[in-house]
Formats: sequence, C-alpha cells, structure tokens
Amino acid sequence: MQLGVIGLGRMGQIVVDRVLDAGHDVVAFDLDEEAVATAVDAGATPAESVVDLAEQLGTEKRIWLMVPAGGAVDAALDDLEPHMDADDIVVDGGNSYFQDSVRRAESTEVAYLDCGTSGGPAGAELGFSLMIGGPEWAYEELKPVFDAVATGPAGHDRMGPAGSGHYVKMVHNGVEYALMQAYGEGFELLANGRYDLDLEAVANTWNNGAVIRSWLLELCEEAFREEGNELGDVADHVAGGSTGTWTVQEALEQEVPTPLIYQALAERFGSRSDRFSRRLANRLRYGFGRHEVAREE
Amino acid sequence: MQLGVIGLGRMGQIVVDRVLDAGHDVVAFDLDEEAVATAVDAGATPAESVVDLAEQLGTEKRIWLMVPAGGAVDAALDDLEPHMDADDIVVDGGNSYFQDSVRRAESTEVAYLDCGTSGGPAGAELGFSLMIGGPEWAYEELKPVFDAVATGPAGHDRMGPAGSGHYVKMVHNGVEYALMQAYGEGFELLANGRYDLDLEAVANTWNNGAVIRSWLLELCEEAFREEGNELGDVADHVAGGSTGTWTVQEALEQEVPTPLIYQALAERFGSRSDRFSRRLANRLRYGFGRHEVAREE
Amino acid sequence: MQLGVIGLGRMGQIVVDRVLDAGHDVVAFDLDEEAVATAVDAGATPAESVVDLAEQLGTEKRIWLMVPAGGAVDAALDDLEPHMDADDIVVDGGNSYFQDSVRRAESTEVAYLDCGTSGGPAGAELGFSLMIGGPEWAYEELKPVFDAVATGPAGHDRMGPAGSGHYVKMVHNGVEYALMQAYGEGFELLANGRYDLDLEAVANTWNNGAVIRSWLLELCEEAFREEGNELGDVADHVAGGSTGTWTVQEALEQEVPTPLIYQALAERFGSRSDRFSRRLANRLRYGFGRHEVAREE
Amino acid sequence: MQLGVIGLGRMGQIVVDRVLDAGHDVVAFDLDEEAVATAVDAGATPAESVVDLAEQLGTEKRIWLMVPAGGAVDAALDDLEPHMDADDIVVDGGNSYFQDSVRRAESTEVAYLDCGTSGGPAGAELGFSLMIGGPEWAYEELKPVFDAVATGPAGHDRMGPAGSGHYVKMVHNGVEYALMQAYGEGFELLANGRYDLDLEAVANTWNNGAVIRSWLLELCEEAFREEGNELGDVADHVAGGSTGTWTVQEALEQEVPTPLIYQALAERFGSRSDRFSRRLANRLRYGFGRHEVAREE
Repeated sequence: MQLGVIGLGRMGQIVVDRVLDAGHDVVAFDLDEEAVATAVDAGATPAESVVDLAEQLGTEKRIWLMVPAGGAVDAALDDLEPHMDADDIVVDGGNSYFQDSVRRAESTEVAYLDCGTSGGPAGAELGFSLMIGGPEWAYEELKPVFDAVATGPAGHDRMGPAGSGHYVKMVHNGVEYALMQAYGEGFELLANGRYDLDLEAVANTWNNGAVIRSWLLELCEEAFREEGNELGDVADHVAGGSTGTWTVQEALEQEVPTPLIYQALAERFGSRSDRFSRRLANRLRYGFGRHEVAREE
Repeated sequence: MQLGVIGLGRMGQIVVDRVLDAGHDVVAFDLDEEAVATAVDAGATPAESVVDLAEQLGTEKRIWLMVPAGGAVDAALDDLEPHMDADDIVVDGGNSYFQDSVRRAESTEVAYLDCGTSGGPAGAELGFSLMIGGPEWAYEELKPVFDAVATGPAGHDRMGPAGSGHYVKMVHNGVEYALMQAYGEGFELLANGRYDLDLEAVANTWNNGAVIRSWLLELCEEAFREEGNELGDVADHVAGGSTGTWTVQEALEQEVPTPLIYQALAERFGSRSDRFSRRLANRLRYGFGRHEVAREE
Repeated sequence: MQLGVIGLGRMGQIVVDRVLDAGHDVVAFDLDEEAVATAVDAGATPAESVVDLAEQLGTEKRIWLMVPAGGAVDAALDDLEPHMDADDIVVDGGNSYFQDSVRRAESTEVAYLDCGTSGGPAGAELGFSLMIGGPEWAYEELKPVFDAVATGPAGHDRMGPAGSGHYVKMVHNGVEYALMQAYGEGFELLANGRYDLDLEAVANTWNNGAVIRSWLLELCEEAFREEGNELGDVADHVAGGSTGTWTVQEALEQEVPTPLIYQALAERFGSRSDRFSRRLANRLRYGFGRHEVAREE
Repeated sequence: MQLGVIGLGRMGQIVVDRVLDAGHDVVAFDLDEEAVATAVDAGATPAESVVDLAEQLGTEKRIWLMVPAGGAVDAALDDLEPHMDADDIVVDGGNSYFQDSVRRAESTEVAYLDCGTSGGPAGAELGFSLMIGGPEWAYEELKPVFDAVATGPAGHDRMGPAGSGHYVKMVHNGVEYALMQAYGEGFELLANGRYDLDLEAVANTWNNGAVIRSWLLELCEEAFREEGNELGDVADHVAGGSTGTWTVQEALEQEVPTPLIYQALAERFGSRSDRFSRRLANRLRYGFGRHEVAREE
C-alpha cells in the first residue's frame, strides 16, 4: 500500500519508519525540509507540498496526518479538500478534540478516520495502541497500515463512528493523569515515610509480579534510576492538561463523577501558581483565632 | 459562684473577664506572673500555685483549665489531684483530643467536664459556643459559669458523657477547615476569573442576605479590607492541622467518607512543601512523551 | 418609580411585594393568569402580555425579568425588543449563565443588567443579596428598586460590566454546594460516631458563637428539628447541579483548582445512580485476590 | 533447603507448591487437616501442630507464616517461641500492619522477616512480588526460597529493617486502590458517554501499547469478557479497606497529601451505605430554595 504522511515530527517519523518497515510505500511531507530529508533517508518519497503529496498518491489516496491538534489539522484538510473524493481516506493520528473530529468528518466526503495514538516515542520499537473512529470500510481498508503502526493486529481497533477514536483516547489520557498521580502519591509517602528506601528498587520489585505493575511503573523505575532517589532538580511543576480538561468537561456533561481524574488535573493547575485559597485560609486563621499569619519574605 | 481559672493566656483572660462581669468571683493562676497581674487588675484574686488555688477554693471546688492541649493538662491535673474529691468539678476548656478527655475523666473521682470552646478571641465580646461532655449534675451546677462564658444560655449545651464535648468540637474544626477552603476556592476563582472584581465588596454583598452568609465570610470581608484585594504578602502556607487530622482519623475508623474535610486538610499539608508526586508526574511526562522536564533553577 | 415585572413565580411575587411595600408602582405579567391575580391582590397593575406591559410603562421603561434561565429569557427579550430603546433598562434577576447575559447585553441597545439573586424564598422577609452587572448609569438609576428587593442598600452592589452579576452568582452557588457538603460531612460523622448526639442541639450550640455559624447551619438546625435526628425518609438523592457545573467548567478554563466544589458536585451526580467505577473495583478485587464478588440480588 | 509453612490457605498452598517445585523440602501445617492433605499430595511432609513442625525442622529453622493478619500471627509466634532461638528465621508473608511487625521483631530473638506479598492467586503461575524487611543475614539466607516464591530473583528485595516490607506493601495497596478507581472512572465515563463502546475491546486495545497498559487493565479486560459489557449483576459495593486505611493514616501522620488514595478509599466506604451528607444536602436545598425534597419510598 502507498501511504501519504503529512507531519514529520517525532511521532510522524515513527509512523513513516514502521510503515516502510512493513513493506509499504510512503510519500512524506512536512513544512520543515530537514524532516522530509530524514523521512527520505528512511526510504520515503518526498513531497513538496500537501497538494504535491495528494497528486503523487493518485486515486484512492490514503493519507495519515500527524500534525499538532487544532488549526494545523484544519489547514492540512483545507489544502487537501479540492484534491480528494469519497474514495479517499484521511487518518488524523494526532490528539484532536473528539468534537473537532466529528465536525471534520461531517464536513468532507472523504472517509475520515480519527485515530487516538498512545504509546509515545517508545512506540518506535513496540508500536502504538490505536483507537480508531470512522467508517468501517475505511478502517478495514487501512488495516495493513494500522498493523504496521500499532503493536500488531491486537494494537488497533475500531471503536465506533466518527469521533469515537479520539473520544476513547481522551478518556485514556484522563486515566493516565490519575495513574501518574496515584503512583506519585505512593512514592511521595515512601519518600517522606519512616524508612530510608531505595525507590528504584521498590519500583523494580513491584514491576516483577505485584498487582500494580504497569508500563507507567516501569517509567517510574527509569525516572529514579536516571534522576536519583530524590528526583534531583526535577521541579514541582506539571505542564499540559488539555486532554485531562476535556475528559473532566465531558464527565460533567455526562454527570459522571471522576474525582481522581479531576484531582490529578487540579494538581497540575496547583503546581503552577500560588493558591489564593490557601492564602485566604492562612489569613482567616488569624481572623478567628489570632494565629500568626505567615508572610512572604 | 467562685471559679478557679488555671491558664491565663488570651483565652483564659477572656474567661476571667466574662465570669467576673457576670458577678462571680475568680481565683486565677498562671506560671506567668504578668498574666496573673492582668487578671488581678480585672478583679480576680491571685493564686501562687495550682495548690494555692485549690486551697483558696475550699470545698466544692469549681476549676476551669485553659491551658494548651496535651501535657499541660495532665500536669495541672496531677497537681490538683491530691486536693480534690468527688464533690469537685474540673472543666477542660482547651482543645484536647477527646480520647485524652475520656482517659482523664476515667482516672479521677472529680467530676470532669470536657468543654470544646469555639469563637476565638472575638468571643471576648460575644461570648463563646461551648460543647460540653461529662456528668449531668456537674454541667447543671456550672450553668451560671457557662452562661457567662458562652454567648448566653443558648451558647452552651451538654452533648453527652465524657469526651463528647471535645468530640463535637473536633468535628466542628474539621468542618471549619472545609468551609475556609470552600470560600477560598470561590475567591480564588473570582481573583483569577474574567472580571476585575472588588472582593471585599463581593463578600459584603454576600453577607447581606445571600445563602452563603456566615461569620467566616465576614472574616473574609475583613481580610480583604485589611490586606487588600490580592491579600498582599499573605503567604501560601497554612499552619495547624491537628484537629482536622483527628477528624479524618475518626472518620476513617467510622468508615465515613469526608472528602471535603480531607482535601481541606491535604491543602494545608501541601502548602508546606514541594509535592514529590507532582515532581514525579513532571518526569513521567518525559518518560512516555518526551515532554520537556521543568527543572528547578 | 414604576417597575414592570415579568415572571410571577415564587421569586417574582416576592419582588412584586417588596417593591410595592417600598412605595413603588408595579405592572405585572405572567402567562399564568392566577399568578397575575395574586400580584394584583398585592397591589400591582395587571398586564395582558409582554407587549401590553411594555406599552403601559411608557418611556424610560424599567423591567425586571424573573423567569426560568434559558429560552424563557430570550423569548421575553424578543417580545420586548421592538418596544424598547436605549433609555430603557431590563434586569434579569434569574439564574442565567453569565455568557448568555453577555450575549444578551451585546445584542440589544437597551441597558441590560444581569442580577444574581441569592437568599431564596426566605428573602420574602429579609430581602435578597443582589450581585449586579451592566452599565453603571442603569444600576444607579434602579437603586431604589434594588434597595427594596435586597436586604437594603448593603444587600446589592454593582460587580462590574455585563455578565459580572451572574458570574459572581455562579461562583456563589459553587461555594454553596461545598458548604452544604462540608456541614453534611460533619453531621454524617456525628451521626455515625461514638456518641449518641442530638444533632439539632449541636447545630443550635454551634449557631450561638461558634466559628462555623452561618445561615446554612441555621437551616441544618431547622432540618433536624423538622425531620428528626436521623432525617427521617429524606433520600440520598441530590437534584440540581447546573450552576455548580458552570462553576467547575469556568475553573477548568481558568486553570484554578476547586477540589471541594468539584467533589460537592460529584456527590450530587453520584447520588443519582450506581457507580460503574465501584462495580468494576468490586470485580477487580476478585480478579487479583479472588475476593468474593458482591452481586445484586 | 527445608522450609516450614504454617497456614495452608490459597496463598499458603501456592508457597508450598512453588518451593517444592524449586527442589526444596517443605513441612506443612494448618489447623484444617484437608489443607494439610493437599500440601502432602503436592509433596510436603505433614506436621500435626506448630510444635511438631518446629521439632521436625531441627536447628536453624526456616518458617513461613501465611496466616491471616492479626491474632493468628501472634498465636503462631507464641506457639513457636519456646522452640526457637537466634539462629532461626520466621517470615510473615501475610498482610500484617507494619507496626505489628516491628513489635513482633522486637519481642523475639528469632530473625523476623516481614514480607509483603503481592500478586494474588495469579502468582501460582507467575510468582509473587515480595517486599521484605528485617535482618540482612536472614534475607540473604532465605534467598533460594524467595527466588522460588517470587517471580524470580528480580521479584523480591530487602526494603530495609523490621517493618519495612509490610510498610512498602501497605503503600502498594493504597496505590492499588487508586489505580482501580482511576480505571473505573475511565470506564464509567465510557459506559455512560456518547458512544456505544465494547469495553473489552477498548481494554484490549489499550493493553497493546497504550501508556496506561498494566496488569490491572488486563484484569479489567477479563472482567468485561466474563461479566459482559455492563458488568451484569456485579454490585456497587466494594468490600475491604484495611490496608488503604492504614496508608491514609500513615500519610496523615507524615503530613503527606494523598487525595487520590483517600478518595478511592472513601468510594469504598460510600458504597456501603446511604450518605447522610447527601441526605442533608437534599433537605437543605428545600431550606433555602424550596426545592422539592426527594423522599425514600
């Protein structure tokens, strides 16, 4: 099969490599010429523009978008639109908001597949987990490509109609926030607790047979190995949060309580600034009890 | 009635003043001679020691302890024990752990009243809310004193047997933590929200007729008036936590969920140090996604 | 002053009564003729339609909407629009979403005041707390009416431009959810704790001088008095939640942690259905530990 | 090596089997004769009592206790005490509270190893994760046994001195609660969300390459496969909670915030009874807003 890949950042290159390794052909485009050169070195055919890529693919185009969520997806689709028809398939493998994916699928005659992609750069070797939404025929048609990009046939599945792939990925990320915070609480307690523990050794022991073993726990083990038992200069500052925010917003709309996911997200927000609520509590303790007010120096 | 008062800190002096104002006699003792002098200026008779105080009171002693929770209560009781019998009444008006109060009541033949005292220094004018546990006859006997120290007859009540006064006060404080944090969250959102608001004016408007009006909200209003709309140099650091911790521990034993009280307490803990859990989450985002790690400078 | 009032439900009637009592004139309309009759009995002049009401008011119309948030507000405004101009003032005293109020203010030349109203039916006697957003001149012009509807001059204030009144009311309600849940946790612990307590007496004692005294705590006291110490047949089911949901959504957008408000909202959601998360946890305990699975009978 | 095993429940039998399979000898005892017979069928030598077991082991006894946490451990130790000395080693492989393990280690001259055992009955095949506290020489001496019971040499480690094994296991279980609840929230949202999803397929796709893949997620997959997409008659009732309670108690003492672990525990408590806090909130909504009170039928 011949696949066009638009967007050759870290994740896009992995898609190119894995698809080529599986014996398919790739036409690759990115605004960054060096990124195109890297893909060419790996065996891809270069395209000079989105339109050039579309033209090289001929009829029954199969195109994988791996660009940042948001305007970049719409821009690529706008460029592609005049050159595509109902026989063509576009996969959005990025982290798009599911309602954007529904909108995009509804506003094109192209078969549009929204594909949540999990596994991170580690997927270069192992392959990814792909959660896919959209028309069944398009999913079936692209199975060889999904087999290549995913860990294998078990690493991808069609979740349902348009948007369902990014919907399931959104929830995946919400759970991910909570899992990270849960492990973090455990290690925070161990780090501040009654024993002088080797946290890498704890993680390693847990990863060998314990109920809580997981890939994230393997990454904890790696973090302690690389940063040290007290995590060195790693700051109390957690960036990101958009997919977690979407998850909580959706849970609010569905009236589903998700207190752990919420709290994991709130920890991120809280890590980024002073908490006015706590400053007020500090002051209120003076108000009713004349307790000394801690002041910034 | 003649009342002995042991412990003449801020709260003890208020007890002395209010009891004297109600027309009773007070014999006062504190290790700090200046504190005794202040009480004498207010009209109390000085005692030179706990034993001297006990001797001055004659039979049917009525004694109010207003010393810090913990060892100071036991020390005062040890000094008093040889000089007291079953006709005597001791009130512990401090913030003792309810199980300590049960233990103390069980280990003496004196009628022991545990008295949770709420209202803070503002009680100097208004009087306090008193939650009292222990023998009914002793509670009835001391009603004139409780009338004087409390806001009046409605401001005190016997909760039940030994320990129940401090038990109800413990839960009161757990609720207090949560109320403070709840108001804090609201004002934090207003302070960071879409409008440029005068938070003192907001609090004032709420305090006049809104569902959430309360004394704590009056203290919020005062805090904004005195510290400014952004709370000036008030630090993101909340001290204290023992009564909240007791409340959550008791809720765990009773298997009662108290997520708001817990979280309000956790905010205090979290305000005092970096969060290892968030540092690990920061690092894990690199582990799976190669997101840049924020480092301390 | 002459005020038109549209919407004569419980809250609308209170507005009519309080404005009449302050010596103003009221023209009243509601789709329900009985509601109009009630207002007429109180001294209002009836209107037969929104248009009739507008015509009766002449120039410089002052109109108070007290209709359910949502489409009813837009419908009333659509009816009024052809009959109003820039000299006229409309107050929306309902629980509208602040962004709807911004939209409405921007799409009319009328001076539009969004007015968050707190205090509930108890405001019939005491008056309400009014949080008002919109043009300053209109707020100043309507002060006599606000004085009448609110607890008095201190019970209303202009928060800022369009939307700010309903914004502050939204946050008020988020705090309200958390306060209710905080008191609830305290009483749940007392109800399940070590002592056999009279919860009405506890609430009464707290309401007289304790730090946590408040109007909501007075309502707790009333609830125990009217329903009994164990709340009788009051169900574990909490309705409502829209303003709390808006508050959390706004906090997510502003990246402000509001864990207590969130959790109070989640308790409402959780009270309305089985929790799938807990059903799965139940089953997982079998998965790893062969613990018996509790089954529905 | 010759190992005495006391306690032949499900977990004890697995220890017996794995130790025998590794070529060691086992002397086995349980109060239940059938359990002893099962162990004998597997190749163990029976003992008729704790004392008989001790006598059969000769000098340098190595004994593995696999009895329920609490009094059963103390009872076995009391029986063993007169027959043991400083050359002997006892392993407590159960779920004991770490402070009990410290106390037991301090009150005997025997080398006492507290061994947290994770992995559940699935460990029959894979082996367990063993977190071990106590004297280094004893840990080194028993390595061949730990190699056999664990997944292998990587599946066990000495955490530190007495109590540290059960301490790390306690925290492990706290994290386990939170992980279960985190997955549960994700699946609850998917089950109530916008798409009609096959949750087993979702879990399977995630388990193949996604960031949140784990053994617990494999158990989720199994649960959906065996119980159906909606978990059939699995009840909203989660039993257990002692190790989670210990974790939160310890976190309170260390002043470490663990909101996710706390909330996961609170969900268990909340699953077991009506929530008084929500019943009060239901009633308070009537108090201030005259909202209809939901009543039990």
